[in-house]
Order: sequence, then structure tokens, then C-alpha cells
Amino acid sequence: MAEESVKLLGNWASPSTLRVKWALKLKGIQYECVEEDLSNKSAMLLQYNPVYKKIPVLVHEGKPLAESLVIIEYIDETWKQYPLLPEDPYERAMARFWAKFADENCAPAFLATFLKNGEEQEKAAHEARENLKTLESGLEGKCFFGGKSIGFADIAIGWLGCWIRIVEEIVDINLIDTKTMPQLTAWFDDFLEIPIIKECMPDHDKLLEHNKNFHKVSTSPSS
Amino acid sequence: MAEESVKLLGNWASPSTLRVKWALKLKGIQYECVEEDLSNKSAMLLQYNPVYKKIPVLVHEGKPLAESLVIIEYIDETWKQYPLLPEDPYERAMARFWAKFADENCAPAFLATFLKNGEEQEKAAHEARENLKTLESGLEGKCFFGGKSIGFADIAIGWLGCWIRIVEEIVDINLIDTKTMPQLTAWFDDFLEIPIIKECMPDHDKLLEHNKNFHKVSTSPSS
Repeated sequence: MAEESVKLLGNWASPSTLRVKWALKLKGIQYECVEEDLSNKSAMLLQYNPVYKKIPVLVHEGKPLAESLVIIEYIDETWKQYPLLPEDPYERAMARFWAKFADENCAPAFLATFLKNGEEQEKAAHEARENLKTLESGLEGKCFFGGKSIGFADIAIGWLGCWIRIVEEIVDINLIDTKTMPQLTAWFDDFLEIPIIKECMPDHDKLLEHNKNFHKVSTSPSS
Repeated sequence: MAEESVKLLGNWASPSTLRVKWALKLKGIQYECVEEDLSNKSAMLLQYNPVYKKIPVLVHEGKPLAESLVIIEYIDETWKQYPLLPEDPYERAMARFWAKFADENCAPAFLATFLKNGEEQEKAAHEARENLKTLESGLEGKCFFGGKSIGFADIAIGWLGCWIRIVEEIVDINLIDTKTMPQLTAWFDDFLEIPIIKECMPDHDKLLEHNKNFHKVSTSPSS
């Protein structure tokens, strides 16, 4: 059988690229990783994602897919080994619900904490903490969002565990509190320690440096 | 066999409630519709959707589900008759992509056109038109997003066809242009003429009146 053509257009420092890498890795799919320079996007990226012109884009047998959560569901439906979504429709709905909640609520508040200043930043940090507490309720009685092992919601949300700590270090604001969010803290640690998850992670120091620069550029008065 | 318990907490004037009604109707599922007063939400709604405290909520055999797109996928996976998502993983991904695009891009620009004034309104209307043109590209070569018959993306996006015209009338701004968006216009008309879709629609005059009041309250200087 001819080898399948699977190409991932992404960027090493992008959480949404990382999600897709995790999904492919868990499925054991070989793929070609095309590193995109986000300040000078390739013609291929613009051609394959004309709607958003953004990474990640998965190209499977010449067919492009955009939007990381959509891509992960595609991966799960195309390659059946190691199912990411559970079988039960209600459990599937819960996994989608928490992935969506993290994208639409945790991520924006977290990003605002990183990029805003003064009162706006304080407000965003408060909101981020409240959202993280809500997110924790999705873990009630479970080790992972997927239950005993990681699944769709875990790989959709897991990046926060790493990025939040980097942002906390850069802006010197505490977001994750072990006392008020014991389960979430344990989940972040356990998830990021799983060998297959760890393998795909960008180098911590390089990522910290990258985000320090990004923060500097984004919050400078002239930007 | 005992009858299944299916309850929908919603509101007659809510597009996201309408989506779920369409999904249940297409599947032929009998359900109890609980009308929520959004100015005085019921204890049941707050109990069943503690995260967002919003409608719609579907309660199936006592288990609550929130977020209309999540609910529709649940309905599709629970009741197999009249599949809303196609079988092919790539086609499924495309349906999810366009539903997400409409929610994250068309709806906010459309809402801002409705509720903003002056320059902000003009900017939002321009953005709404551009997004609708992009949305049209998802229909290329097809009668419906689902192909020859309606599916997931159609029932996720179809409300726009009705609501846009109501908003155009209230704020006197044109958003849908038959010349530049012929396929989208035809799709809106065809979709809203399908008997099962039409049956669930709120009364046009009542909806217009409701939105006129909503617009008045939301844009009055004291609000």
C-alpha cells in the first residue's frame, strides 16, 4: 500500500498546532510537518486556508482542513486506533462541551491577562481564575477529562497547563491556585508528564523566551 | 417500551433554540418544550446549565446538555434516523467548519450591525457582508451545505436567513445582496421553504415586533 500523504502546516510555538500533533501522535500517524513563518505566510497556507489564513492546516491526501478542533475530530474519525472521543453520546457531548468552553472562555481571558495592563489585566486575571475553577468541575471524579486515560478534551485543553505557567512567570500574576483548584493542577501535571504528550512539547526555555519577546512587542506603547 | 423523556428548555425567539427544535423535528423525536422567561430564568435552567445559565438546554432521560451545536451532535449520535452529519469524515469536517464559521464570524458581525450605531455599525455591516460572501463559498456546487438535502450545517446556519431580513428591516441596512451572493440567497429561500423547517419557525410579525422592542431597549442612550 502506498504511504498516506499527511502534511501539517503549523508553527512550533502554537498551542493549536500542538493539539493536532498530539492527536496524530496518539494515533501513531506519520506526517510531514511544515513549519510556517507567521510573519511571512507561505502561498501554500494561503491556498489551503483561504478563510482564516491561519495555522494549523492538515492536508490529508491533498485535502486541506482548518480549525484545530475540527481537525482533531477528523483525525479521530479517519484513524480509528486509540479513539479520542468516547463511544457514549453523552460522554462525547461532555468532551466537546469542555473543549469549547476552554477555547471560548479560558483562552480569551488568559490571553487578555497576558497582553493587557493595569485594571484591564486584573479583571482578565480574575475572569481567567473563575473560568479555570469552572473548568475544574469538568474533571469531577476523574483523572482526565477522558476518564482514566486522555482523550479529545484533554488534548484540546492540555496546552493551557504549560502556557499558563509561562504567562504567570512573564506577567508575575498567579492564575492557577493549587488550593482552590487541586484537581485541575493535578491534571495539568499528570497530563504533561505523559511521555507521548511530553515528546511533542516545545523546549520550555525556548518557548519562554519566545513569549517574553511576544509580550514585549505586543505591549510596547508603539504597538 | 416506556416513552423516552426529552425536554427542551428554550425560548421561542432564540435562534439557538430553533436549531435544536429543527434537529429534533428532522429526527421525528417527541419532546416537551419548556418556555423560559429570559428575564426571570427558572431554577431548572440554572441547575441544568450552571456554566452558562443559558438556553437552550436539552434534558434527555434526566441528563442535561448545553450549547446548541454540542446538543445537535448529541441528537445526531443518539437517534440515527435522518443523519444530520454525512458519513465521510472530510464532509463531516466541512459541515462542522461552516457551522463554526457562521457562529464565530457571521453571527457577531450581524449582531453588531443590529446593535451598534454610526461608524461602528457601518464597519460591522461591511464585515457581515464579507463574512456572508465567505460563507457562500461553502455552498459551491451544492443546493444545501449538506449536499442535495439539508444537514448539520444547514440547521446550524439557517436561522440567519430569517433573522438577517428582520434586522435589515429594522436598521434599514442591506446585508444580503442577491447579485453578489446568489447562491446564499437561494439557499436561505430554499431552506426556509422546507415544510419541516417552516413548521418550527416563530411567527414572522411577532418576531419582528419582538426584535424591534429588543433593538429599542438595547440602543436607547440609557441602556
